[in-house]
Amino acid sequence: MVDETYLVRALENNEFDIFRDEYFNLHPYDRAQFYFKLNPELRVKIYEYLSPEEMGEIIENIDADDEDYEPLFAEMNAQYAADTLSRMYTDDAVDVLNELTKDQAASYLTIMDQESAKEIKNLLHYEEYTAGSIMTTEFISIPEHSTVRSAMAILRNKAPDAETIYYTFVINEDRKLVGVVSLRDLITSEEDRLIKEIMSDRVVSVSVSEDQENAARMMKDYDFLALPVVDFQQHLLGIITVDDIIDVLDEEASDDYSKLAGVSDMDSRDRTPLRAAKKRLPWLIALLFLGMLTANLIGSFEDTLEQVAILAVFIPLIAGMAGNTGTQALAVAVRSIATGDIKDESKMKLIMREAGTGLITGTVCGILVTGIVYFWQGSFFLGLLVGFSIFASLIVATLAGSLVPLIMHRFNIDPAVASGPFITTINDIISILIYFGIATTFMGYLT
Amino acid sequence: MVDETYLVRALENNEFDIFRDEYFNLHPYDRAQFYFKLNPELRVKIYEYLSPEEMGEIIENIDADDEDYEPLFAEMNAQYAADTLSRMYTDDAVDVLNELTKDQAASYLTIMDQESAKEIKNLLHYEEYTAGSIMTTEFISIPEHSTVRSAMAILRNKAPDAETIYYTFVINEDRKLVGVVSLRDLITSEEDRLIKEIMSDRVVSVSVSEDQENAARMMKDYDFLALPVVDFQQHLLGIITVDDIIDVLDEEASDDYSKLAGVSDMDSRDRTPLRAAKKRLPWLIALLFLGMLTANLIGSFEDTLEQVAILAVFIPLIAGMAGNTGTQALAVAVRSIATGDIKDESKMKLIMREAGTGLITGTVCGILVTGIVYFWQGSFFLGLLVGFSIFASLIVATLAGSLVPLIMHRFNIDPAVASGPFITTINDIISILIYFGIATTFMGYLT
Repeated sequence: MVDETYLVRALENNEFDIFRDEYFNLHPYDRAQFYFKLNPELRVKIYEYLSPEEMGEIIENIDADDEDYEPLFAEMNAQYAADTLSRMYTDDAVDVLNELTKDQAASYLTIMDQESAKEIKNLLHYEEYTAGSIMTTEFISIPEHSTVRSAMAILRNKAPDAETIYYTFVINEDRKLVGVVSLRDLITSEEDRLIKEIMSDRVVSVSVSEDQENAARMMKDYDFLALPVVDFQQHLLGIITVDDIIDVLDEEASDDYSKLAGVSDMDSRDRTPLRAAKKRLPWLIALLFLGMLTANLIGSFEDTLEQVAILAVFIPLIAGMAGNTGTQALAVAVRSIATGDIKDESKMKLIMREAGTGLITGTVCGILVTGIVYFWQGSFFLGLLVGFSIFASLIVATLAGSLVPLIMHRFNIDPAVASGPFITTINDIISILIYFGIATTFMGYLT
Repeated sequence: MVDETYLVRALENNEFDIFRDEYFNLHPYDRAQFYFKLNPELRVKIYEYLSPEEMGEIIENIDADDEDYEPLFAEMNAQYAADTLSRMYTDDAVDVLNELTKDQAASYLTIMDQESAKEIKNLLHYEEYTAGSIMTTEFISIPEHSTVRSAMAILRNKAPDAETIYYTFVINEDRKLVGVVSLRDLITSEEDRLIKEIMSDRVVSVSVSEDQENAARMMKDYDFLALPVVDFQQHLLGIITVDDIIDVLDEEASDDYSKLAGVSDMDSRDRTPLRAAKKRLPWLIALLFLGMLTANLIGSFEDTLEQVAILAVFIPLIAGMAGNTGTQALAVAVRSIATGDIKDESKMKLIMREAGTGLITGTVCGILVTGIVYFWQGSFFLGLLVGFSIFASLIVATLAGSLVPLIMHRFNIDPAVASGPFITTINDIISILIYFGIATTFMGYLT
């Protein structure tokens, strides 16, 4: 979409007007993409060509997860950087400041115009991942006793600065949230009517300390474009807009996915093998030690193995099946917790259902395996041993897969941490214990 | 949030007015939740108490993924059901019809008012998962030569029926899309100005046959509230609104997650163990047969195993490490493809990076394992054998984990299908082949 060579040439030739003409023909998102991909020498020119306000719009359009703000701001002259931040929507400026070094952030806040600095500092107080940390304070509120006409005047006046004007929140004399009115309602109502009469008082709000994921789920379920954030006395503090919510949902989904795969997090910043390896090695090494435990466990059955070497053949099958079924149960439980479905259904019910599921899948797979091993190896007892081990492992693994995240959730640990590889290793150990336990006990029938 | 007992009692006592008063105090989403949880006898009363239009609003607020529409519509009188569908936004009505039986859908379309039926049939043509299938035709378009005043009049007039009025798309005489104007622009502009002058002609649109996921990514990146859908001649056909996009992104993330865990799909409809088992068994059985292949493979090394039983001890460790590292690489590749990052970076680059990552993780884990096994078992050669097998397996598994989804993507197969369990099983086989291959070759050093 972006004719990059043309723009780059204009920059290289110092063609100020041509560059600006073409550049502002682009959507802000494309402007941001172009800016970010530029080499540092040309980026420095951009800072001369654009006002801090124009630069702020670009920074707002860079996805916070994908890019590293620190070097970008370090390139700028400090006053320009501070001005850029002060021109941005407060919530976006806070996102950037959180990614910078403490010194960088502190110095920008010192030289910034003090009104913006104060607003930003107010937001910096809120803990990460709360509704407060993603809300913006650039919202429009109107008193309940105003008329539609005066509300429209306020809106027209504040439109250039507000993050959204499509939902306006209504407050009473104590600045407490009492209603919401949409621009759709405003433009279709008589100009003399009171806001109080046309507003909806069924306004759903979220507490400033609420988890951002709950705020996101709420907006998704109710199809809101903006959600008001209040303190414990219902004072309106800010709003969350739908574009921020999409980012939150996307981030959380990515996060659950990464943890299931055993990668601490994935982002496009990992452009070198070393950075990618650094993120994956801690998991791999932890799993290596868990794997050593499994090896140790099998080692304690070395006598059994020496007498019946064929037993080794089925180790990966049994461990693998237990691992797979455990991961399935884990994924269902983690998603149920993440989407809030778990509230609709008691935890006990989920566990009972998983136990039932394990019983069914265990029975089917157990019988199947008994038959296959019997025909393949010609030993009915070996078939029965492997089949029964699969049966028992599947039940235990399914239960473990659902119990572990539920217990972690109970203790307020993110259940996604009970990630795929860990539950797999636990289930490896359980299934091998079952398999060799039975084999050793009934050794007489195998030799 | 819902005082359910009060509402249920009103229904049971046939208190029509009380029920309606209280019920309409609820947000449509809460109304939908209440309706859905009701037992069928009381649901039938709801159909008497609410008009098809009011019912339509409720159905629009039921999450299509969570609930089963078929029994709900089967409860209704056919004319009432058809009227309900015709009062809904076309895109939502289409979602419902797609979930009903063919007979049910056809009969509703026959008795419905013919204008709605025609609009719905137009949308039913679009293939699932395309932009066309999620767009709505209830949008507002204005001619480029109108004034702000007349545009506002059109908006006021059409506001009750349109799905969004915050973005209005501008068309020329040939009904081709030429621009976009936001309600924010309209209310802050002079009433006599021409739309042509205030509109933005940098309007981003999506083709009707485009994948819905691409449309969703585009809206997320550009922070759009509405995206116009056009045919190949740039005629405006419909719009996609942000609430539909959130559902698409959520669905796709859930889908990738499920496949990584080896569950075909997870939804809250699986309330019984039997339904849950039915969804998981096909995967488990497929994996069981793959696991039998692995067992067969190990079986072919039975001679080696009989001579050196200790070899069996490290099978799960080596296979497990290969499986984990493969899943990590798979997850990174699948997410890169899903989020479109893969376009920014050539595929060759990704593969080279993964090869480098595998080399680093393989070297670190290989050396670690060699040391641990040496100290534990006192055999340097055994340590070297296990360590080297881990080294080689990790490199191959990392490469396989990234190559498989890339190749599938190339052939237009959803790469998430190369799910966790499958890549794990493939890597099991590769790693066991490496391990026993080396062990058998250098047998002399082990005994």
